[in-house]
Amino acid sequence: MPSVTPIAARPEELARIKFDADGLVPAIVQERGTGQVLMMAWMNADTLRRTFAEGRTVFWSRARQEEWRKGDTSGDRQFVREAYYDCDGDVLLFVVDQEGRGACHTGERTCFFRAFGEVGAVGEGGEGDEGAAH
Amino acid sequence: MPSVTPIAARPEELARIKFDADGLVPAIVQERGTGQVLMMAWMNADTLRRTFAEGRTVFWSRARQEEWRKGDTSGDRQFVREAYYDCDGDVLLFVVDQEGRGACHTGERTCFFRAFGEVGAVGEGGEGDEGAAH
Repeated sequence: MPSVTPIAARPEELARIKFDADGLVPAIVQERGTGQVLMMAWMNADTLRRTFAEGRTVFWSRARQEEWRKGDTSGDRQFVREAYYDCDGDVLLFVVDQEGRGACHTGERTCFFRAFGEVGAVGEGGEGDEGAAH
Repeated sequence: MPSVTPIAARPEELARIKFDADGLVPAIVQERGTGQVLMMAWMNADTLRRTFAEGRTVFWSRARQEEWRKGDTSGDRQFVREAYYDCDGDVLLFVVDQEGRGACHTGERTCFFRAFGEVGAVGEGGEGDEGAAH
């Protein structure tokens, strides 16, 4: 089992985070090593605290209105290695070790597995999905 | 000047994008080459179309309630090379060539230049900002 590295966020750092009207902040998850952006989900103050304390990503499901610790169902856990907040304090970035198949419930490694169109191919029309998997 | 590569998003791809109650969708921007996550901002249907057509990121400023083409003021333009949408169709990812100093209005290359706490340092308390710049 991968090691767990809790993050000791300081009170002054937490105070800089701006939650939206629903009490949520977007959390981008990036894979360490590959640099691949795996997913984006939402955290509230409680799931952010749990994420830091447990060293695993914990999100708030807007659809189900409940906490959701990544991997508890799928087994594909995310172990947090670094955590950042942006200049405005309203977006978070977690660098993780992704366990198992990947981050996406579809079985893909990243949720961003579908590309728009084809680069530089304006006017050529649809050519299938060559660029979709990455 | 960097080349511009418009993206020919297909109607069926655009139809999969879910905009929120304000008509917006989060757009993550990642630097090609370094893989660094530079920023996250918001797009509406119009700025998404402009982004594809012009090959440069165009956002919707929630604070100013206006379109905002990245780099028009700062000179730090973002040239889109790849564009992805996630499994739920409610988050976008743009892979770009970042011009100039970087993406952040503070002068940092990435907006995520501040790290929370110190990895593995739970209980050690505040130790300054060694992990802040990346």
